[in-house]
Parts: sequence; structure tokens; C-alpha cells
Amino acid sequence: MQNTTAPLTTIAEIGQHEGQPITLRCWLYNLRSSGKLLFPTFRDGTGTIQGIVPKAAVSEHVFDTLKSLTLESSLTVYGRVRADSRAPSGFELDVDDLTLTQRIPDSTPYPIQLKEAGVDFLMEHRHLWLRTPRQSAILRVRATIQRAAAEYFDTHGFFRTDPPILTPNACEGTSELFEMDYFDDDKAYLTQSGQLYIEATAMALGKVYSFGPTFRAEKSKTRRHLTEFWMIEPEVTYLDLDGLMDLAESFLTHIVTRVLQSHRADLKLIGKDVSKLEAVITSTDPGDGSQSPHSGFPRLTYDEAHAMLLDAHARGLLPAAHTYGDDFGSPDETYISSQFSKPVMVHRYPAAVKAFYMQPDPLDPTKALCVDVLAPEGYGEIIGGSQRVDDYDLLKSRIESHNLPLAAFQWYLDLRQFGSVPHSGFGMGIERCVAWICGLEHVRETIPFPRTLNRIYP
Amino acid sequence: MQNTTAPLTTIAEIGQHEGQPITLRCWLYNLRSSGKLLFPTFRDGTGTIQGIVPKAAVSEHVFDTLKSLTLESSLTVYGRVRADSRAPSGFELDVDDLTLTQRIPDSTPYPIQLKEAGVDFLMEHRHLWLRTPRQSAILRVRATIQRAAAEYFDTHGFFRTDPPILTPNACEGTSELFEMDYFDDDKAYLTQSGQLYIEATAMALGKVYSFGPTFRAEKSKTRRHLTEFWMIEPEVTYLDLDGLMDLAESFLTHIVTRVLQSHRADLKLIGKDVSKLEAVITSTDPGDGSQSPHSGFPRLTYDEAHAMLLDAHARGLLPAAHTYGDDFGSPDETYISSQFSKPVMVHRYPAAVKAFYMQPDPLDPTKALCVDVLAPEGYGEIIGGSQRVDDYDLLKSRIESHNLPLAAFQWYLDLRQFGSVPHSGFGMGIERCVAWICGLEHVRETIPFPRTLNRIYP
Repeated sequence: MQNTTAPLTTIAEIGQHEGQPITLRCWLYNLRSSGKLLFPTFRDGTGTIQGIVPKAAVSEHVFDTLKSLTLESSLTVYGRVRADSRAPSGFELDVDDLTLTQRIPDSTPYPIQLKEAGVDFLMEHRHLWLRTPRQSAILRVRATIQRAAAEYFDTHGFFRTDPPILTPNACEGTSELFEMDYFDDDKAYLTQSGQLYIEATAMALGKVYSFGPTFRAEKSKTRRHLTEFWMIEPEVTYLDLDGLMDLAESFLTHIVTRVLQSHRADLKLIGKDVSKLEAVITSTDPGDGSQSPHSGFPRLTYDEAHAMLLDAHARGLLPAAHTYGDDFGSPDETYISSQFSKPVMVHRYPAAVKAFYMQPDPLDPTKALCVDVLAPEGYGEIIGGSQRVDDYDLLKSRIESHNLPLAAFQWYLDLRQFGSVPHSGFGMGIERCVAWICGLEHVRETIPFPRTLNRIYP
Repeated sequence: MQNTTAPLTTIAEIGQHEGQPITLRCWLYNLRSSGKLLFPTFRDGTGTIQGIVPKAAVSEHVFDTLKSLTLESSLTVYGRVRADSRAPSGFELDVDDLTLTQRIPDSTPYPIQLKEAGVDFLMEHRHLWLRTPRQSAILRVRATIQRAAAEYFDTHGFFRTDPPILTPNACEGTSELFEMDYFDDDKAYLTQSGQLYIEATAMALGKVYSFGPTFRAEKSKTRRHLTEFWMIEPEVTYLDLDGLMDLAESFLTHIVTRVLQSHRADLKLIGKDVSKLEAVITSTDPGDGSQSPHSGFPRLTYDEAHAMLLDAHARGLLPAAHTYGDDFGSPDETYISSQFSKPVMVHRYPAAVKAFYMQPDPLDPTKALCVDVLAPEGYGEIIGGSQRVDDYDLLKSRIESHNLPLAAFQWYLDLRQFGSVPHSGFGMGIERCVAWICGLEHVRETIPFPRTLNRIYP
């Protein structure tokens, strides 16, 4: 009855073996029984599949072993693949035989059972929580988002360059920096962004990107903050703000396209409404030739967004009136993004609320040539970028007026002294992108081992 | 004469425009003149190209501007591409016109001139040193090594999962850890390896890899040590040591193949003997069917390597005799690797000199099921890996006998308590791989902004 030479496969690829015997290395995710029939569900990291085990079809040993098997025990299963339109994956497994790898003792059951567990308990057991289908699905989507993001730049003439994680000074002030001792009484700070450094590598290589962890010692305990998070940041010479918005749109479109190509089952399992993602990449070209290929994402100036918010307040849709000159609050961003089915690009914010290195708009120097991309469905800013100041004297006066230490920024000023060129770049936070694409309430589910104000274990 | 609407291109792609007018955004890398003829060399990040500017062929303004132009000034050049077999890239540029972006004043010349500069000066000006052809070429090769490494796993069923950078405890002792304050009197340590964490994600997803920075507060000042370096680490369930060696060989072969596909000109510029890399991927199958497709890299046991070293000592080729039971020193590794044209895999070291988490060899429990891959040409260990202990009791006793804090490793022990399976993984240091593939004397050239005992600026 057993066939231990049947080809090894994964649940994701099991459909290629319909009607054939296969071998599966897996864990027991769930087990239902109905008298002389067992319905084990197996997981192997690529997905889950239900097995069918009639008592009459297997040896007594196999039936009894499986019937009393503890959840998350590891085993190798031999069986035949059968199409079943009622199964979520479209297939079921007729089990012939099995070999246990490790049976978890009845005395120490797997701590995360299928019933609800509290968040603290789950976070404390994150190393095991990751195995549950929802968390595994999120990790798979995250992997594809990261791969697609790097792939976009790799295939568009960018060179990956790694900025340092340990930096000698703060990019934008020191209040939220993690500080540590570096040899011989030196101090080091964990990077908050690779931008300043990849401006240097862009001057060497033209089009570059960085992809690494960034840190913020923020004492915020919200569902959108982590102390450790991943950023991907392109920096491009001779690129202006319009080109930067084109780049951000093309980049996000590529990521959503890749996720939809490979993760419809995962998104369904997570509970994401896939139509919301389809809307992001659906062409909205009206057919009258009035829009460029890159005109799909709405672009609003700060002033237009401000007017939209005032109007919403007047109509009772927002409790507070937005103050001109202020940055947008979370309810403001949610309202703006709710007006569109695609990510919204808000550009040309007041320079006073933005970073020192942003190029002023020549048409109105009180505005910065910057853009924030707001994700749909109220997920807030996922991309922030700008054209950078490329004039030495202007940048120097900005550093001084922001009370930043000139000596620490001398190397950054050098980039403007020696062959300066116009350049622009943006940063996308991976975790916020994962939260948006998967439709997650809390950013803690977006990364394997989240680091927050209160948690650094496991 | 000028053609400001000629298509924009890059030096790397200029061959596609042979005989055509083009636009190039670039920097002036070098300038020679011979009376009424100028030979400017331009760089744009993708490469360098020589221009030809006869006084009679351009306007007086263009000739005079270029003749007195300072090095590293930024400009847009309009010209026509001409094949020239004497040129390193095979092409030269007949310059028609130019537009300056920024002319560096004569009073503050670009500090890195073509003459030799001292290492300290170059390191202090790393942000500018990166622009020189050799450093740019190394960065381009590094980018391809990173891309090929991730691509290998992405296309072989692996999911990228990010381990935390901030960890609550040490993986292998605390002496070389960077420590910092984390909120509320907690301490955090910068990761030295993602391995322990991706063992957890491997149990969730089957085949995973991590790719991020790692840290070592080592007080060594050698040409092979950085305090911050990048690691790529796969971890695979149901993989044994033989399978791990197959994986490492296939992985390295892919990386070298990709570098040779795209970077022959860069390697030549750097001064690497490309035939040494070609030898790595050349099949050594004797054609008698005795070797598997993965048998190209020599595999030696520790005992065999030890015997080889004793023999070398007896023949006067090594000053010191290797002591059985000790790890190999740098001269030992250099000697072993010099015996082969491909990376050498040394496996089954004495367990006593290896990490606590390595599975003992069932045939000789004093040996660990581990492998170090030594790069050719004396570049030392580039990959270290092992099969992991998968038995709870054995791992627990190992943690205790290594005097590691049991509580901190409870989550790691959980992986053996709940559905343990055999698994293996390795880590490859990106910088050591770059040093080997590019043939670099010092690891400081392998990363954009090296961090060493004495340097954290820029």
C-alpha cells in the first residue's frame, strides 16, 4: 500500500501530480475525525492540504498513529493527489502511509491551538505563531513584495549600494536615535535612512538603491510603529520631482502586479479584498489621449489636498479643520486616500514642515519639491521622497538654520561642491507596504520578529 | 552642430548607438590635450568613455570650456558614437557640444586627483573616492553578487525572511557584541547572524533565507575584518550536510556565472585574472560517469585537510605543523585552497572547535556535521554552515555545557520541542565574497562605507 519512492513535492506544487502518488514532508496542522474517517490537514510552509484517511484504506498502525497524533508533530506522508473542487486549493490527498519525524508528547502540546490566543501570548511565542496559516501567508506575501521591489530596480538600471547602519551622526535630529558606544569613547547611532549616503553612491553610479533595516527609538506605542523596520530607497541623478513621481508609480504598480500574480490564495486566507489591489493596477486611461501611461495615480498639490480637507470639514465629514501650513494628520490622510481607489501622491508641501535637504520649488520657494504617497484604504504614507538641494550655499545655510552640526555634514556638502547634479529619491517602508497590501490592522504582523517599545523577545 | 534632442544613453549602452548622435549626462573624469586636440574621458557610473574634440570641429566656446574644465565637473555632452578597436570599451565619442551642470572652481579642485593618495586620506573621502573607476567597478560587481545571491534563492523555492537586528541575547557568546540601551533599562545587542531566527521561519515556511547586515565588535585591525558586514543565510528543513554542500556549490557557481556574464570589463579594470573565475565554473566531470553534477568543488574531511597540512609541513611548505583538533589558521587555509582551482569544502571539524548548535556526526560524535567553504587564491572562509542539532535534550545539554543562559534560548529550544525536523543552513559573508571575486587585498574596498575599529566616518 505504501509507496516510499513516490516523488517528493510541496503543497504549492501538488496540482502537478494529480492522480499520482507523492511524498510530502510536513506538519500536522489540524485533525478532524468522523468515526472511521480521519481528515488531517497538513502544512509544509508553501500551503495547507486536507488528507482523507478511511480506516479501511490504510494499515491499522497508520490509522491509529494519525488518529492520536498531536498537532504540529512533524511527519512524512505518502499519498495520492485527487482534484476536489470543494477544497480551497482544489486538491485533496488520499493518504496511504506515513512516517513520523517527531511526535509532540501529549504532556506538552503545541501551545498555539486553533482557538484564539491573546496578543501578548502570541507575541511571546512569535517563533511558533509564525507557523499558523495566516502568519505564514503574510510572510510569503512580504517575501514577494521585497523581491519585486528589488527586482524593479535591478531591471531598470539601478545598482544596489548599501549605506552604513552604524553612523556617526543623525540625519534629521537626534531625539529618536538609538545610541551606542563605539570603540575608544566614540559614539555610534543606528541609521534612520540610507538617503544621505546613497546620494554619494548615486554621484558615483548614477542610479542606485539601498535596501536594509532602519531604526527609530520612538516611544510611540501605536499600531503603525516599529523600532526596527526595513526601507528600500532609490536615488537617481538628473531626476526631477515629476520623474520621481513617475518612478514611484511604476514601482508600486510592479509590486502589486507581482503580488496578484502569485498570492491570490494567500490574500484570500489573510482576508484581503483582492479587488482593492486590482483597482490599483487597472488602467484608468479615459481613452481620449489626455493621460500619459503614468497618469494612473492621482497627483494633488498640498494646496489641493488642503482645500479637499476644508471642504470635507465644511460638509461634516471631518471633525477638525486642517490648518494651512501644518502637516496632515492621520484622519486627514485617511480622508484623502478614501477619495481614490489608487495610491495618492501629494506633492509640494510647505518647506517648513519638511526636511532640510529638500529642493525648494522655483515657482514658490516656500514649498518643497517633495511627494508623499498615501496608500489606499487609510493605510497612510508608504513612500516619502523629494528632489534634493543641489546647491552648496543653499544646503549649507539649511544645515545651519536647522542647527545641525556643520562638521558632521561636511562630506554631504562635498557632494554639492564637486560636480553637483540635480537628483531625487524616495524611501518606501516595507512593513507599511505589507500592512496595506495584506490589509493588516497592526504592523506587528508584517515582520517575522517585530521590535516595539515593549518587546525585544524572542 | 549641436543636437540637443539626440537620445539620452549611458556609457554601458553606448554601443547600441554606433554612428548615431547621443546625449550623455556625465562627469569629466580625465582630460588630456595635444595642441588643437582634446581627449576628455567621461564617466557616468556605468563606465568611462574617451571623447575626441578637434578644435576645428566644435565652436570656440565648446573647445575653450572643455580645455579648462576641472575634473569631476558635471556636464551634459552631445556627440556621435564611433567604434574604435583601441578603446577599452570599443567605442569613442566625437563631441559636438556640451552644457555644464556644475563647473568645480579652480580654487577648490576635486581632492582625489589621479595621482596616488594615501589610504587615510582616501578613507576620509570615501564619499568621493567611490567615484573613481576602480571603486565604481567594485561596487558594480558587489551589486551583481548581491543580486545573484538573492536571485538564486528566489528562484529555488526559498522565501526571504528577515531576522531581527536588535536581539536580546548573544548567539555565540557576548565578547564581540555591540551593546546598547533599549527602552526602560533593557539592553539590546546587534545581531551577529540571523541563523537562530531563520531556523524558526524555516519551520514555518520550509526553505528560507535572510539577507542583512551583521555586526562584530572585534578589536582586530586586519585586512579581513569589518565591524559591520552583510550576510546571506539560507536555512532548509529536511536538508542534511551532503545536501547543504550541494546547495553551497550550486549557489557559488551561480554567483560566479552571473559576474562573468556582466562584468568582464569591470574585472579587467580592477585587475582580476578572469581565468581564475572561469576555472571555478568549468566542469571537471571526467566523463566516466563517476561524478555527480555537483561534484565539481573538492570536498575534504577535516582529517584529510589535517593530513594535507602535515605533509606540507614535512615538505617545508608550511612553517608550522598543524595540531590535530585545532581550527585551521590563515596560512593553513591559504595552503589548502592553493591546492585547488575551485572553492574547497572542508567538512566534519572537531565538534569542540565549532558552535553549540551543530549536529554531531553519527559515525563519529566527536565531529560536527559542518562545512567551511574556502575561497580560491587564499581568500579564506567565505561560507560556514552545518546541519543543526534537532534533538531537544541534546541541544539543551549543549547550551548548558557552553554556559549559555537557558532562559534566553527557550524559544530556540521550542523549535526542537514542537515538530522538530532535521535542517541545515549556511551563511556567506558578502564582503569576503566580493574580495575574492574582485581579487582585493583589503576588505575595506568591498563595501561603500566600511566600518572598522578606527573608522565610522563618513
